[in-house]
Amino acid sequence: MRPVCIIGIGQIPVCRRHTAGLRTLAAQAVRLALRDAGVEQVDALYAGNMLADELQNQKHLAALIADESGLAGVEAVDVSAATAAGAAALRLAYLAVSSGEADLAVAVGVEKMSDGIATPALAKALDAEREVADGKTLVGQNAWLMARYFETYRPPADALAYFSVNAHANAQHNPYALFRDRPITPADVLASRFIVPPIRLLDCSPICDGAAAVVLAPADRAREYTAHPVHLLASSVATDRFRLDDRADPLFLTAAHHSARLALQRAGLELRDVDFFELHDAFSIMACLLLEAVGFAERGQGWKLAVEGEIGLCGRVPIATLGGLKARGHPIGATALYQTCEIVLQLTGRAGLNQLADPHIAMLQSVGGVGTTVLTHLFAGPDHRPVL
Amino acid sequence: MRPVCIIGIGQIPVCRRHTAGLRTLAAQAVRLALRDAGVEQVDALYAGNMLADELQNQKHLAALIADESGLAGVEAVDVSAATAAGAAALRLAYLAVSSGEADLAVAVGVEKMSDGIATPALAKALDAEREVADGKTLVGQNAWLMARYFETYRPPADALAYFSVNAHANAQHNPYALFRDRPITPADVLASRFIVPPIRLLDCSPICDGAAAVVLAPADRAREYTAHPVHLLASSVATDRFRLDDRADPLFLTAAHHSARLALQRAGLELRDVDFFELHDAFSIMACLLLEAVGFAERGQGWKLAVEGEIGLCGRVPIATLGGLKARGHPIGATALYQTCEIVLQLTGRAGLNQLADPHIAMLQSVGGVGTTVLTHLFAGPDHRPVL
Repeated sequence: MRPVCIIGIGQIPVCRRHTAGLRTLAAQAVRLALRDAGVEQVDALYAGNMLADELQNQKHLAALIADESGLAGVEAVDVSAATAAGAAALRLAYLAVSSGEADLAVAVGVEKMSDGIATPALAKALDAEREVADGKTLVGQNAWLMARYFETYRPPADALAYFSVNAHANAQHNPYALFRDRPITPADVLASRFIVPPIRLLDCSPICDGAAAVVLAPADRAREYTAHPVHLLASSVATDRFRLDDRADPLFLTAAHHSARLALQRAGLELRDVDFFELHDAFSIMACLLLEAVGFAERGQGWKLAVEGEIGLCGRVPIATLGGLKARGHPIGATALYQTCEIVLQLTGRAGLNQLADPHIAMLQSVGGVGTTVLTHLFAGPDHRPVL
Repeated sequence: MRPVCIIGIGQIPVCRRHTAGLRTLAAQAVRLALRDAGVEQVDALYAGNMLADELQNQKHLAALIADESGLAGVEAVDVSAATAAGAAALRLAYLAVSSGEADLAVAVGVEKMSDGIATPALAKALDAEREVADGKTLVGQNAWLMARYFETYRPPADALAYFSVNAHANAQHNPYALFRDRPITPADVLASRFIVPPIRLLDCSPICDGAAAVVLAPADRAREYTAHPVHLLASSVATDRFRLDDRADPLFLTAAHHSARLALQRAGLELRDVDFFELHDAFSIMACLLLEAVGFAERGQGWKLAVEGEIGLCGRVPIATLGGLKARGHPIGATALYQTCEIVLQLTGRAGLNQLADPHIAMLQSVGGVGTTVLTHLFAGPDHRPVL
């Protein structure tokens, strides 16, 4: 496989309700990424999206975005893994470039959740016949996990609140984040209204609109395009039993565990090499469980990393460094591409007031459904020299 | 890139209305393909589907099919390109194996169109804002192309009818085909009711249910699994302007032309090397235009290949050799995988009464929308020796 780099990024500010349409948001992100890479044409465009089918009555999005971006003629394919759709687009672009089939590929993610009521469409990530038919929803299933977590491990009542506090703090200085003016306290989280108990409003990532894109190229040509190529070291996907009810140990996210192991193995890295972790904090319980599944914390202890400040910018495992899903926002199909843009900014020293001290290796995880599908990507900064 | 082979195929009979659910159909096809390959586990599963979101209220299908097939844990990703979704799944499996990321990958396609009214959902392959909002549909746009074709080239009134006649004749002996008991004549086609004039019922592929799957492996290991590996020589995707209205020359399917050229170039082949062509005969006009775009016929002359019998099993360019979309059936996301299974049968001498005389190279084309996205795949029989 050819080593792959990211040579350009593009993001538009996450909003509650963009006035522009879905295709326009996506094309803006694509053009920003192309401009950042200094290229006008690419070989392929892969689009991650979850809800356009329902909210915009639009399938066949990759070809539409390609046309809207002035790239008509290019290979264009839609890819998804429910709420991890953006990461699936990144993976497909990685496969296309690493296989040699494409030299330049764009991965774009877009979601315009404000065009309707997104929540029922989001539930289609679950089993329609055996979960949704019983009244289950994504937030409901996360609430069940959170309740079970508290019953099992009995952490303090505000144990998970610090995930949201950290995310909002980190979003302050991210110009693309939704919640830039809203630092919050643990008390705010515990005072916010219940969505599905025990999940409260401030445990949840917001419904919002956004688009982000990255351009990939073979590593040996990356410096023709940019002085700061970021290495995409590895990509992996693992799945769990589809339904929570079928899992012997639902508090352990097996797919997150396996996907992380697989990516580390492919990159020839150990977990201790990872300097920060952009994880899928769609709900605070999910952030906690991912830290445990990947191995940053013992089982039942993930919340301590938050309470003790270890997930902060100066902590042992920084997460959500530019706001995360919780406070940058979680426009579903776009999310992993926003995370990728943020990882590129961190690894190239361009993260502004949120800049981590000299990070070298980043891990990105995206979750489809309630831990059913997990994609992991590993990145290294421009100075990375592969171990041969 | 590693050369790739198909080492197993699985198809279930196409039906008007299967009693089993979507996931069951898909898992049956996957298990048949795994059994044919003699393997129990694979590294990855890619699922092509277009309509489950709407007709079964189900997204996240690849992970669901993996679980239902007993492959929980495996990489599973959804992929689509509107009505060419199955070919997109084949392409992703090809990229995964050719890149070295996966050793064994399943591409599965499934569609259960009988769970509701499929036609409005199919129109989501078009531009929701600028085509569907004006009342355009897939069949309507194909009817516009057919009317324009007749105005432009003035072929005889029954010129396109022979495409359907050929397809129904070839379906007779395909046990997986929908229309096995229904040979038709040109007069039958011209006597059938109008759907959207000038398209008549017997110009259209049917609404139906089905699932098919193939297993891919690296070519250098293929004979560990089967005595009859079929080489997947090349894969390509090209797009056109999204909307028919934006195309300078709508009767020339630019994406089909470019996609075919790209695939031939990647395989180091010429068009004259192609022994048969499984094309996207969703409507008879589309079969005619694809023959012209790819270069098997001059512009305005594609219908002559049908009228003169050159598309038949003993003709110069056999198409739809086991019934095609028209008569095997067109369960959207499954279609390209059915075509792939049929190509494998032809190239390994197992096509029964429909067996072509010693075919070596096959071309497969799948169309997303009205010529917007076209995927081309090229195959060679077990005796193929690559030119180095």
